[in-house]
Amino acid sequence: MIKSTVKGRRVLVLSTAIAITMTQLQAQTIPTDQTLPLVKYVKPIIGTERMGHTFPGATVPFGAVQLSPETDTIPYSVDGKYVPDVYKYCAGYQYDDATIVGFAHTHFNGTGHSDLGDFLIMPTVGKLQLNPGTAADPASGFRSRFSHTTEQAAANYYKVDLEDYHIKAELTTTTRVGMHKYTFPATDSAHIILDMMYNLYNYPGKDVWTYLRIINDSTVVGYRQTNGWAKNRTEYFAMQFSKPFKSYGYKNYSTTEPYIGFWRRFDMRKNFPLIQGHDIRAYFDFDAKAGESIEIKMALSPVSYQGALDNMQEEARGWDFNQIKNAGQLAWEKELEKVKIETLNDSDKVNFYTAMYHSFINPTIYMDVDGNYKGLDQQIHNANDSHFTNYTTFSLWDTHRALHPLFTLLQPKRAGDMVESMLKHFDQSIIHMLPVWSTYANEGWCMTGYHAVSVIADAIAKNINGFDQQKALQAVITTATNPLYDNIPAYEKYGYIPDSLSGTSVSTTLEYAYDDWCIAQMAKKLGNDSIYEQFSKRAMNYKNVYDPSIGYMRPKDKNGVFRKNFDPLETSGEGFIEGNAWNYTLYVPHDPKGLIQLTGGDKAFIKRLDALFTTYLPDKYFEHTEDITRDGLIGNYVHGNEPSHHIAYLYNWTSEPWKTQSTVRMILKSQYHNGPDGLGGNDDTGQMSAWYIFSALGFYPVAPGSDLYNLGSPLVKSATIQLENGKTFAIKVVGQSEQNVYVSKVELDGKTLSDKTISQSDITSGGNLTFYMSNKHKK
Amino acid sequence: MIKSTVKGRRVLVLSTAIAITMTQLQAQTIPTDQTLPLVKYVKPIIGTERMGHTFPGATVPFGAVQLSPETDTIPYSVDGKYVPDVYKYCAGYQYDDATIVGFAHTHFNGTGHSDLGDFLIMPTVGKLQLNPGTAADPASGFRSRFSHTTEQAAANYYKVDLEDYHIKAELTTTTRVGMHKYTFPATDSAHIILDMMYNLYNYPGKDVWTYLRIINDSTVVGYRQTNGWAKNRTEYFAMQFSKPFKSYGYKNYSTTEPYIGFWRRFDMRKNFPLIQGHDIRAYFDFDAKAGESIEIKMALSPVSYQGALDNMQEEARGWDFNQIKNAGQLAWEKELEKVKIETLNDSDKVNFYTAMYHSFINPTIYMDVDGNYKGLDQQIHNANDSHFTNYTTFSLWDTHRALHPLFTLLQPKRAGDMVESMLKHFDQSIIHMLPVWSTYANEGWCMTGYHAVSVIADAIAKNINGFDQQKALQAVITTATNPLYDNIPAYEKYGYIPDSLSGTSVSTTLEYAYDDWCIAQMAKKLGNDSIYEQFSKRAMNYKNVYDPSIGYMRPKDKNGVFRKNFDPLETSGEGFIEGNAWNYTLYVPHDPKGLIQLTGGDKAFIKRLDALFTTYLPDKYFEHTEDITRDGLIGNYVHGNEPSHHIAYLYNWTSEPWKTQSTVRMILKSQYHNGPDGLGGNDDTGQMSAWYIFSALGFYPVAPGSDLYNLGSPLVKSATIQLENGKTFAIKVVGQSEQNVYVSKVELDGKTLSDKTISQSDITSGGNLTFYMSNKHKK
Repeated sequence: MIKSTVKGRRVLVLSTAIAITMTQLQAQTIPTDQTLPLVKYVKPIIGTERMGHTFPGATVPFGAVQLSPETDTIPYSVDGKYVPDVYKYCAGYQYDDATIVGFAHTHFNGTGHSDLGDFLIMPTVGKLQLNPGTAADPASGFRSRFSHTTEQAAANYYKVDLEDYHIKAELTTTTRVGMHKYTFPATDSAHIILDMMYNLYNYPGKDVWTYLRIINDSTVVGYRQTNGWAKNRTEYFAMQFSKPFKSYGYKNYSTTEPYIGFWRRFDMRKNFPLIQGHDIRAYFDFDAKAGESIEIKMALSPVSYQGALDNMQEEARGWDFNQIKNAGQLAWEKELEKVKIETLNDSDKVNFYTAMYHSFINPTIYMDVDGNYKGLDQQIHNANDSHFTNYTTFSLWDTHRALHPLFTLLQPKRAGDMVESMLKHFDQSIIHMLPVWSTYANEGWCMTGYHAVSVIADAIAKNINGFDQQKALQAVITTATNPLYDNIPAYEKYGYIPDSLSGTSVSTTLEYAYDDWCIAQMAKKLGNDSIYEQFSKRAMNYKNVYDPSIGYMRPKDKNGVFRKNFDPLETSGEGFIEGNAWNYTLYVPHDPKGLIQLTGGDKAFIKRLDALFTTYLPDKYFEHTEDITRDGLIGNYVHGNEPSHHIAYLYNWTSEPWKTQSTVRMILKSQYHNGPDGLGGNDDTGQMSAWYIFSALGFYPVAPGSDLYNLGSPLVKSATIQLENGKTFAIKVVGQSEQNVYVSKVELDGKTLSDKTISQSDITSGGNLTFYMSNKHKK
Repeated sequence: MIKSTVKGRRVLVLSTAIAITMTQLQAQTIPTDQTLPLVKYVKPIIGTERMGHTFPGATVPFGAVQLSPETDTIPYSVDGKYVPDVYKYCAGYQYDDATIVGFAHTHFNGTGHSDLGDFLIMPTVGKLQLNPGTAADPASGFRSRFSHTTEQAAANYYKVDLEDYHIKAELTTTTRVGMHKYTFPATDSAHIILDMMYNLYNYPGKDVWTYLRIINDSTVVGYRQTNGWAKNRTEYFAMQFSKPFKSYGYKNYSTTEPYIGFWRRFDMRKNFPLIQGHDIRAYFDFDAKAGESIEIKMALSPVSYQGALDNMQEEARGWDFNQIKNAGQLAWEKELEKVKIETLNDSDKVNFYTAMYHSFINPTIYMDVDGNYKGLDQQIHNANDSHFTNYTTFSLWDTHRALHPLFTLLQPKRAGDMVESMLKHFDQSIIHMLPVWSTYANEGWCMTGYHAVSVIADAIAKNINGFDQQKALQAVITTATNPLYDNIPAYEKYGYIPDSLSGTSVSTTLEYAYDDWCIAQMAKKLGNDSIYEQFSKRAMNYKNVYDPSIGYMRPKDKNGVFRKNFDPLETSGEGFIEGNAWNYTLYVPHDPKGLIQLTGGDKAFIKRLDALFTTYLPDKYFEHTEDITRDGLIGNYVHGNEPSHHIAYLYNWTSEPWKTQSTVRMILKSQYHNGPDGLGGNDDTGQMSAWYIFSALGFYPVAPGSDLYNLGSPLVKSATIQLENGKTFAIKVVGQSEQNVYVSKVELDGKTLSDKTISQSDITSGGNLTFYMSNKHKK
């Protein structure tokens, strides 16, 4: 733990928060350029085109501030209100767009639903315009055209020229502070617009309340409350300019605020230091000499604007943009150094380290430097009491598969804190549920299952510390037996969810069965036999929705009759969420052996898998399912969405395990590229990237909740994993080449592995793993 | 101070808060009926008809909860939205109405603008209706008809039968908790409606956000944020039922909340324990046997729902309605005992003790039992650090005249706390201003002047403790020289506010001049000569707006030319706020002698005063000025509104002081009655009532900021003032009768007074004041 002083008070900054404090900055040798050995391979632009939904802007690892440009985001309607685009602009940026409306401080990385986009800042020159204008006619508002030729997106640094204003914009961050540097032409009418109406996932009425308090000629504090995907979210801020503004003002776009105070006593419209209302755009005016830079620091807090001021004071006291940038890049370098790889070419390194980068963006730190955070119960709590760092943004349907297992390996301290964050969420939940899709002190109930139990069981299987294991067991049991949640009583009664009760009865049954297996594993390790037995039995419920007459999982009604008129290729409306029966029939990660038996044995299973990767899926089967696109398809296998992520590894349970090896290598090569369109689907807060990292290293967690990884075919030539416990785990790949995708032998510390697995402790106790590669598979 | 334990924590309950704790309850002998000797004279119904704007419901002295019925309040528009009635329903109740829509927990007493009305509760029986319905057709909604024959309104107790449902409703309170008792007929469909959309001063968009959390089968917590007269106000609550509800639900009337969570995972519409949105009405269902009572406790907090729970735990642990009621009535009795009077008849006692009651309602306590409160800066502060009780609702344009001076006499500890509350407001004000019209952590800038300085100067003149005097001096100077506020720079430059800059240039100039005199007095006492001189000079600015050619104060432009086409009878648009030149010309409370000289000397002044009280003012001169009505007029003198309240006492500076005596007695008799229409104008949070108390006792603070009271003609036969310092001050009136309105002699401790004044210290040092009455005036 790092103890430091904020405004005369002793505060505790937990080491896991990786707060970049000035003290730390000064104690380290900060490189002065952007050529750090591994950071240079990070290309945040990857995934920003079409489906990746990543953002190119600046952030430190797991930063609370993720500061990034917003492009055409929002078609602007005639009455001056934004129109939402829920899906396309999840990260605020689309590479093919031509304009930037400004730079906002909060983003999801790679999600399939949008929110956030807090506190849009846009510098302009000339006549003040408070409307963003339209992409078709950028001059109609404050937005500006830009070009990728002047754009630079690196870890913790983003730069672009705003062509309409001849302004160079640069961004960097600390954990809780965004720093802007705008270099102006000579002008007596420079403006900084603070658009508090800007939102990702915007619509009339989303802005619940906005409050700005101008505390001196260069400092503004306040907050905004929004009713979005996070239904009841308040983000606080403190904003500081490097130079006093000469005047300021705002416009309130709301039409439902009859009482505006008495303007005969004050003119509150200009230079009045308290601004509040439903829909506010503020502006600050400056003079600028040619080439003069105006810098802005924007600190965030989940708790109060005083908290934001304290965060700024602690993390970013001065005005040294490069120092902040370099400190953040050094923090990234340290994270990337946890896996040092050699590859056949630099392109693979770019994919790998960008995947590392994208894996370490969400969940984000959600607490002030003094440990205060807002809980799901809308009350203020302090994390220091429980000695953890509070995280938010858990996209668990996606991330329980590989991202959280990756954290158990590369971020064990954070992994423990994330479990503790989930247990606090459970404590604060009015219905006593672990998170499903939670963000910023809100639960959105997005997607299905209760996959927090997978994350927790996996952490326990892998001896992650930092939370109370028995309490965790109670929390997963309570969650999995919640009578209010998504047909659990029916699931308990019938052993599956009847078709008539749910549009996703089959996939939810399958997910519950896997989650139940996780609970069983956890109970076993913690010595609770009756829970182990109860949930082991529930874990077999997947069998109840399998229809042997057609060979697929299939919706079934209360009386046990399968649904008529069923199409196993269709991804929507057939009892599954975001997927078809082809893919979901393979979703039994915890019991591949049982699944093979159920579906006709080894040969039939191999044939099924082969067909999955080769059967062409016509557009009509997925064009209405947003998360599935042609980009992310390989045959009928969907790599661009999560439910299939384990499938390539299932060949390992058959008599043709080499097909896991060739298929994994094929996916690594076809679904990940260095370009803006380099991701075949939503990154989903790092799940797509985590799949890449594991698979490139040669192993993958098919069933989190077990401590075993399944072996595939490594992409790297070698890798060294630096563990938090001080040990290292080295991966050597003998005979690696583009053609040599088959593994003829694997040795752990010189002993040939007879199984297709290694365990977490094999890795964490340090050692050497050697793959011997060949262009031919073993028999 | 009383120390007590809340949930295992030691908390400090300041004695001034008069929190009715269970500990106190148990330690006292609680009378079991409502016949306490003085409480029985309190008739909260006085002022509830037409213009008084008082409420008849239950409250303890200065209670944070003021729980009262809401009558026809709201014409209901076709689209399901309320239409605001800003003025008529300031207190939520009008005596002439025929229906009750429910019972709400916060009210202003006697104001001229509405807000509050938090958390309307309405019990019903039969088919659930979530709309209030219309007064014309009560059956169209949940409202009920009622009759005054079943109504009882006493100090801290209100009872009425809800005829449409055969429910008896009873209300009582502690400082922070409202208690409801509803006695039902036999039914299997009793409902308690919790209407979170109900507001006083309502309009679409006023409800910013509503949050309900059902924490068990009989407890609900939450909050509501509103954008009303207080622009950014959040009130938190904790609500407990004496009996578990059998089911519950809500309706969200908002049309701008696209994301509602996923109903396929939960049905959130019924029996789901988290309810939130813009516009919420919730309901709770019960069975009831004939004559069964369901009780409800509703605790409020300015800080958090946990604060509300703690408040409930501290103040109202059990379910003994009578104990709570009796404890509150005992608290009232103790307040009323501070002035024991004998009168010619009971009617005067009713007026007097009801005036005492109405004077001790606002300002209200605005902090939790643990000292936490929300500041004007929207941050949470703790009052224990500064050892004060935080108060809110300062209607200072009204109350600086007599209500706050009354507090210096009868509530000196509270008076100090109120000044400290104002100084905290100053600290928290972004523009460094003392309160103008502040309420619930908001400043509304209503009305004119900076009259907090009058209250503070008066407190210093009268040796009130509990705040830092030098800091107070800085605060009043900063306030009075604020370059942003209402034309202060022009006032400083010209010595008056030019007509072109303000619609109320003359009255504001006059008010500033008086306030400046207050600052001068305060500076003098605190030894700051230069400030004394500076503000003594400013205090003479009243002379700058007097036009000797017509004999009235009159708007004047920058070049010194008086406005043409000026009508001194007109109350609107002639340079004055809520008053005409006739009344405002007499508004120089700090320098009557100078005013007499300015306006032509003694005889002319007497003639002017005589004319004021006798000149008939036709309707056309005031019918567009809400706060002035025929009820409150005596000739052209307006007792129903504040600017004239000192005028009757001005005869004391002339050669015919007996006219003060007869006029005061005439006003006491004509403007105050025992009936619902017993107040001739808005009580204005107690100012009308405080005028009555002082005048009935025989003296009045013409110029707060001085420690002198001006003598009038007492209404009482005798009075004993029990002072907080333990001393008593006795008033005897020899020869009192309805006819003997003239004072032939006054003795203080046996010595005849040569002057027409007594000082605060004359009173607070204890002693005897004897008036000798006659039916003829002297000379």
